[in-house]
Amino acid sequence: MISGRCAACKNQRRKCPSDCIFSPYFPSNDPQRYAAVHKIYGGSNIGKMLQQIPPYVRAQAAESLYYEAQSRIQDPIYGCYGIISQLLQQIHIAETELVKIQAQINIFKPQNPQVGYQSNFDVSMRQFQFAGHSSHTP
Amino acid sequence: MISGRCAACKNQRRKCPSDCIFSPYFPSNDPQRYAAVHKIYGGSNIGKMLQQIPPYVRAQAAESLYYEAQSRIQDPIYGCYGIISQLLQQIHIAETELVKIQAQINIFKPQNPQVGYQSNFDVSMRQFQFAGHSSHTP
Repeated sequence: MISGRCAACKNQRRKCPSDCIFSPYFPSNDPQRYAAVHKIYGGSNIGKMLQQIPPYVRAQAAESLYYEAQSRIQDPIYGCYGIISQLLQQIHIAETELVKIQAQINIFKPQNPQVGYQSNFDVSMRQFQFAGHSSHTP
Repeated sequence: MISGRCAACKNQRRKCPSDCIFSPYFPSNDPQRYAAVHKIYGGSNIGKMLQQIPPYVRAQAAESLYYEAQSRIQDPIYGCYGIISQLLQQIHIAETELVKIQAQINIFKPQNPQVGYQSNFDVSMRQFQFAGHSSHTP
């Protein structure tokens, strides 16, 4: 038995090298973390993705891959796309609310010029729109 | 040369069977679509994920996987996680704006009781929070 192996090397039943790409981000005491990314992306793809980015951002990448893998396991149809769709709907609701309030305020503006409200909230929905598809309603 | 192969079978240089799991979602006239999911998940994982869900939702799953793969290619560090983080920040801004307006309206409420606004906007941020991590600022 080889001790001190990371979760990836333990999963692959191999020796964990000192420069193991997985070791800092997938510790052996959290096997579920590696199991999730392994299930969705495969160990080889995770290794490749981590290799292709600078070492100082690998922890964030591993965390985001884990988050996306968990989302896909929880929702095998929509994954993170489903969360984004829900958030876009929340933003749409907020925008509608703000327009409604703005209209209400404008009614009383002439009598109370100091009740002037100008929203700074401007979400460019276009930047998050799904290419060629409207967002779904999960 | 085998004609009529889907993008996945073309990529794998194999015959495209009549019941090919990829064929309806990865047509040969859009090779970039399959190339994106292949790069991030690997062909075998994509096939497995499609197999595990009912046929009537596979088109949506293929679309969401393509969206997530594109996001990861565009942002190899944060992928979709980065988009979710940005949207949560937009929602936080919207909530702050609404609280500010509500306070402004309340100042004038006694004089103008008809200017009563009650926001229906309520985002449960908790449901989208990243487990054990605060959202980053991309």
